[in-house]
Amino acid sequence: MAMQAQVIYDFSAEPGNNELTVREGETVTVLNQNVGGGWIEAQNSRGESGLVPEDYLQVGAVSSRTPETATYPVAYIPESSNSTNTQVANGDNPWSGGGAYTNDTAGGWETQGYAHTQQNAGDDDDDGEWDEEWDDARSTGGYGETTGAYGETTGEEEGQAAGRDTHTHMKLSLNKFAFSKIPNPEVYLLAKLPPKGKDRLAIYMGDVGPVWLYPQSPLDCVVADPKKGSKMYGLKSYIEYQVIPNTTNRPVNHRYKHFDWLYERLLEKFGSAIPIPSLPDKQVTGRFEEEFIKMRMERLQGWLCRMCRHPVVSNSDVFQLFLTYRDEKEWKTGKRRAEKDECVGPMVFSTIDPEAPELDIIEVEQKCELFSRFTKEMDDGVKDLLNVGNIHWKRCTGPLRKEYQKIGKAFQNLSSVFNTSGYTGEATLTDALTAAGKTYEEISQIVAEQPRKDLHFLMETNNEYKGLLGCFPDTIGVHKAAIEKVREGDKMVAAGKITTQDKVTMAKRTSIMCYSLQAEMNHFHSNRIYDYNRVMQLYLEEQIRFYETIAEKLKQTLGQFTTL
Amino acid sequence: MAMQAQVIYDFSAEPGNNELTVREGETVTVLNQNVGGGWIEAQNSRGESGLVPEDYLQVGAVSSRTPETATYPVAYIPESSNSTNTQVANGDNPWSGGGAYTNDTAGGWETQGYAHTQQNAGDDDDDGEWDEEWDDARSTGGYGETTGAYGETTGEEEGQAAGRDTHTHMKLSLNKFAFSKIPNPEVYLLAKLPPKGKDRLAIYMGDVGPVWLYPQSPLDCVVADPKKGSKMYGLKSYIEYQVIPNTTNRPVNHRYKHFDWLYERLLEKFGSAIPIPSLPDKQVTGRFEEEFIKMRMERLQGWLCRMCRHPVVSNSDVFQLFLTYRDEKEWKTGKRRAEKDECVGPMVFSTIDPEAPELDIIEVEQKCELFSRFTKEMDDGVKDLLNVGNIHWKRCTGPLRKEYQKIGKAFQNLSSVFNTSGYTGEATLTDALTAAGKTYEEISQIVAEQPRKDLHFLMETNNEYKGLLGCFPDTIGVHKAAIEKVREGDKMVAAGKITTQDKVTMAKRTSIMCYSLQAEMNHFHSNRIYDYNRVMQLYLEEQIRFYETIAEKLKQTLGQFTTL
Repeated sequence: MAMQAQVIYDFSAEPGNNELTVREGETVTVLNQNVGGGWIEAQNSRGESGLVPEDYLQVGAVSSRTPETATYPVAYIPESSNSTNTQVANGDNPWSGGGAYTNDTAGGWETQGYAHTQQNAGDDDDDGEWDEEWDDARSTGGYGETTGAYGETTGEEEGQAAGRDTHTHMKLSLNKFAFSKIPNPEVYLLAKLPPKGKDRLAIYMGDVGPVWLYPQSPLDCVVADPKKGSKMYGLKSYIEYQVIPNTTNRPVNHRYKHFDWLYERLLEKFGSAIPIPSLPDKQVTGRFEEEFIKMRMERLQGWLCRMCRHPVVSNSDVFQLFLTYRDEKEWKTGKRRAEKDECVGPMVFSTIDPEAPELDIIEVEQKCELFSRFTKEMDDGVKDLLNVGNIHWKRCTGPLRKEYQKIGKAFQNLSSVFNTSGYTGEATLTDALTAAGKTYEEISQIVAEQPRKDLHFLMETNNEYKGLLGCFPDTIGVHKAAIEKVREGDKMVAAGKITTQDKVTMAKRTSIMCYSLQAEMNHFHSNRIYDYNRVMQLYLEEQIRFYETIAEKLKQTLGQFTTL
Repeated sequence: MAMQAQVIYDFSAEPGNNELTVREGETVTVLNQNVGGGWIEAQNSRGESGLVPEDYLQVGAVSSRTPETATYPVAYIPESSNSTNTQVANGDNPWSGGGAYTNDTAGGWETQGYAHTQQNAGDDDDDGEWDEEWDDARSTGGYGETTGAYGETTGEEEGQAAGRDTHTHMKLSLNKFAFSKIPNPEVYLLAKLPPKGKDRLAIYMGDVGPVWLYPQSPLDCVVADPKKGSKMYGLKSYIEYQVIPNTTNRPVNHRYKHFDWLYERLLEKFGSAIPIPSLPDKQVTGRFEEEFIKMRMERLQGWLCRMCRHPVVSNSDVFQLFLTYRDEKEWKTGKRRAEKDECVGPMVFSTIDPEAPELDIIEVEQKCELFSRFTKEMDDGVKDLLNVGNIHWKRCTGPLRKEYQKIGKAFQNLSSVFNTSGYTGEATLTDALTAAGKTYEEISQIVAEQPRKDLHFLMETNNEYKGLLGCFPDTIGVHKAAIEKVREGDKMVAAGKITTQDKVTMAKRTSIMCYSLQAEMNHFHSNRIYDYNRVMQLYLEEQIRFYETIAEKLKQTLGQFTTL
C-alpha cells in the first residue's frame, strides 16, 4: 500500500474535483492505483490526498525518468520560452481575472499543429477513458499568450516525427512541449495522386481574386444549454452543450472533448491550407464555475461559428457529422471514418481545383511573402491593442473605480458635515450634495462594469484573431517549404532525384497551393473586414451609451443645485 | 570687496529676476552692498551671483547668529511641522504644476494672524522700500497646506508679544515661524470703552438668527488688466492691477503689496470677529510668468470679491479707501489714518450693537462649541475633497491621457496594417479605424484638459474655503478665551482682581461677542450654501459637457463603420 511515486509533470488540481496539486520532482504515496479512468489516488508529504492523472506519476520510480520519458527532450522547449510574456498579465489582471485567460497558456504560434495525443487511445467514447473536462492538458488556449517568435519553429523540423510518435500515448502538459508543426509538402508535390474523388474544393476567380466556392446560404449554429453530467460515481464531472445548426434546427449534444476531437480532425485535414484556430483554452478556470461555463460556451460558440463561416471546413464530412449526427451509431461510425481519412495534411491540396492559369514561382513567392508579412504585422497590431485594452480594463476596474468612489464619498462626507450646521435652509444643498455623491458612486460602478460591456467584445474578437493569426506561420510554412522544393528542382533533377516531369508537376502543384492560399487570405480578409467593423460598432455603441448614461445621471443631479 | 556673509534663511530666487538662491548656513561673498531696495548682490561658492534680500544675510558674520536673531526661537516652529503634508503633492502634481500651489506654503491654521512684519517699516510707499512682487515672504498661501492641527497654536500664546515685536523690522520667511495669533480678549472685556462713535456695527435678528446689517446693493469689483512695471533700473519688476468697484466704476491701480497692506489692516482690525482669509500665496510661481499672473489675478479677484461680500469688511473705511481713493494724496492720508486706527483686535467688539437680549454663558459656550466643531469638520471634509481632486487631476492629465492616446494609436496602427492587405474594399474600414484612432487621441486631449475646465473651480473654491476655515481657530479662540475669563469671574472677584460690576460687564460683552460670532457664522453659512451650489453647478455642467462631447465625437466615428 505504501508505494511511492515520482511526479514527472506539474499538475494543478481543479478545486472541488477531488484532485491533488502536485509539482514535478515531488514524491507522493500511492493510495489507490485502481481508481480507473487514468487516475491514481495519491497523498503528498503534507498528508493531503486526491486524484492525480496516472501519466503525471512514475509509480515505483524515485528520482530518475525511464528511458521512455527521456526521449521527450527531442521536442522540449524550455519553460522560460513559454513565459516570455509581452502582455501585462498578472494576478490582478482583470482580463484574466474574469476567468478568461491565464499566463501559463501556450497559445498562438506554438500550440497549433500535430501534437495530438491520445487520438487513438480509445475508440470507445465514454467508458473508462481519460475524460476530464476541466483539466485535460491536450488543448491549449486559442487566445493564450503567444510566446515564440514568428517562424521560430522551423529550425526544429527534425524533432517532429519523433515527438509525435513518442507522445501518442502520453498525457502530459503540452504547455512545456512545442512540436514543429510544418508538415512536409513533398508528400503532395511528388505524390502519385489518387483519382479525383467527388470531394473537390473549387476555387473561382472573384472580384477580389481567387476565392473559395461559398454556399448559397451560410451555415450557422448556436451553442447553448450547458448541462452538467458526472462519471466515476460522481468523482469526475463534465458539461454537455447543445449544438443547434441552422440547417437541421435539430440539437445535438457535445462535450468539450468532442469539440476537441473535431478540432484535431480539422487541423489534421485542413491545417496545411486553412488556419484552424485552437479551441478556447481548457485549462483556464473561472473564479466561479458558472462564469467559467458561460465564458467557455461563448467561446465554443465563437469558434464553431468561425468554422461554420468557412466554406471548405463547414462543407467537410467531419464537420457535418459533428453538427448533424442522428444517433450514437452514426456518430461513432462517422468518427471512425474521419479518423481513417487519408487525405490529410498537405494532401488536401490534391483535392483543390483552381479555375485559373498556372502561376510562376516568382508570383507564388511574392504572394506568400505578402501574406506572411501581413499576418505577422496584424498579429503585432492585434497584440498591441490587446495590451492597451488589458491595461485600460485594469484601470477602469481598479484605480478609476476607486477614484470615482472617493469623489462620491467626499461629496457625501461634505454633505454630512453641512447637515450639522444648524443653519436654516441647509437641506437643499445637502440633499443635492448627497445626490451628487451617490451619482459619482454610481459612476464608479458604471466605470468598473463598462469593460465587460464594451472592451470585452473588442478583446474577445482580437483574441480570436490572435489565435487565428497564430495558425498562419504553420500554414504559410507549408507553402514556403513547397516553394523551396520547386527552387531546388533543377538541382534535384541534376542529381537524378526527380525527373524533369516531376519538376513540372511540382511547379504546377505549387501554383495550386498558391491559389488555395490566396483564396484563404481573401476569405480571411473578407471576414476580418466584417468582424472589425462589427466589433468596432459594438464597442463604440457601448462607449456612447456609457458617456451618455453618465451625462444623463449628472444632468439629473445638476438639477438639484440652486443658486436662486 | 571680498566681504563674506552668512545666509540666515533659505531664499529661492525667482527665475529671470536677477536673484540668487541661497540656503541657510551657506557662506556667500558680498559683491555689492549698496544695491538698495533691501537687496545685496552676492556670489556663492559655485561662482553664481545675484541679488539676495539683505535681511537673509548676516554680513561679516560667519557662523553664529547675533543675539537679536537668537530671540526668534521663541516662536519658532520646526520646519518639519510645515512639511507634514496630507495632500499628495509632488513635482508631478498637476494642481501645483499649473502654478497654483506649492508644498512649502504655510497656510491655513498657521499663517493667519498677527505676524505682521514691516508694517511700519516705511511710510513712503514707493521709494527704496522692499518692494519685491514675486518673492516677498510676508504673505503666505491662503490655499496652502494646513499643517498644524486645529487649535495647536494655543499652547504658544506666551510667545506672541515677543515674536511680534522682535520681527517688526525683519523680513524673513514666515514659513518657518508661527506666532500665536489669539489676541487676549481682556482688553475688550474689562476696558473702559470710549464713547460710542458713528461706526457702529449693527446685528439684527433675521430668519436664521443674528445677522449683520447687509447693504441694499452688494459691493462688487473686478480685478483686471495686469501691467508690468519695473524699478531699480529694471533690476526688479512688479505687476500693477486695475481694481474697478461697481460703486464708482472707476479703476484704481494696486500692486500686490497694496493688497497685502489691506489684508494686514483687515486682519488687525477684524480678525478677532471675522475670519480674514490670507491673500493668495505670493511665493508660488507659475511655470510661465503669464500663467502665474493670470492665476494670481484670478485669486486676488476671488479674495477681493469675498471681502466685498462681507457687510462689515466692505463697509469699513480702510476697504473703501482701497477701492475708491482718488489720488496718491488721498491714498497716503488714508493709509496713515488706517494704520493709526486703535479700534483693532478684540476692541472691534466694542463697536458691535446686537439688538437682542443678553445670552447666558452656557448658551454662549454651546454656540461657540458648535461653530468650532463645524468649522473643524468642514475643514476636514474640504481637505478630503481637495485630496481626491488632486489625485483625480493627476490621473486625468497623466495615465488616463496616455491610455486613451495608446488606444487611439493602437486603432490607427491596426488601420495602417490593414491598409497593406492589398484586399479590394479595404478603404472603408481603414478610414473608419483611423478616424476611431484619431477620436481616441482627441479624447485623450479632452480628458487631459478637462480638470482645468471643471475640477479647477471645484479646487479653487475648496481651497478658498480651506483658507477661510483656517482663520476660524483664531477667531473662535478669542471667543473661547473670553468665555474662560467669564468663567473665572467669581474667582477674580473673590481675589479682588475685578469688581462684581466688572464681572457683569464681562458677561454682557461676551454675549455681544457671541452675537457677533453667530452673525459671522450665519454670514459664512449663507455664503457657503451659495458658493457650493454654484461651484457644483459649474462642475457638473462642465462634466456633462465633457461626457456629451465625447459621446458626440464617438457617434460621428461610429457612423463610419459598416457591416452592410
